[in-house]
Amino acid sequence: MTRICFELHVKPDKLNEYVERHAAVWPEMRDALREAGWNNYSLFVKDDGTLIGYLETEDFAAAQAAMALTEVNSRWQAEMADFFVALDGAPDENIVPLREIFHLD
Amino acid sequence: MTRICFELHVKPDKLNEYVERHAAVWPEMRDALREAGWNNYSLFVKDDGTLIGYLETEDFAAAQAAMALTEVNSRWQAEMADFFVALDGAPDENIVPLREIFHLD
Repeated sequence: MTRICFELHVKPDKLNEYVERHAAVWPEMRDALREAGWNNYSLFVKDDGTLIGYLETEDFAAAQAAMALTEVNSRWQAEMADFFVALDGAPDENIVPLREIFHLD
Repeated sequence: MTRICFELHVKPDKLNEYVERHAAVWPEMRDALREAGWNNYSLFVKDDGTLIGYLETEDFAAAQAAMALTEVNSRWQAEMADFFVALDGAPDENIVPLREIFHLD
């Protein structure tokens, strides 16, 4: 199992709407993530729009690839794209795992 | 159980040393964290010195208070203080949990 942490940046003036959308993520999107191996997945935000994601998965590349194959992910990412600052491609294509330097079980 | 995510900032020119120190956290510091209820605790860094912490705990205020009572934490925080940008007090006293906006088990 690997732990993945990533940072993205939501436009500050769209942060409230982004938060609202994430209080009501489509059930089929939640199911797809779970089936693709995105476990213990949380998102956190700062007021300035900084978004931190954390998840646990067997193989993150495989988990990303599995989501990329789903139709619901394409719909979700298309709706999320305009919330983010300066992306090249869909939001989920901009995830770069941070470097883990410490872990305590 | 609550999930806590926080962000701090390490001085970029001290990041390598900070990483080295965290590859060799004192066993008594690890034990103290575990006993104080800091579970599944990870630290991640970006090259610019951004430090992201993630942990799970029953009650974060209680987990912080329990660590604050330990002698080893005082020694550790004193040694870590100079690694950080613009802190008011010890590093662990500057932890402000980010807002969780989404979770999938």
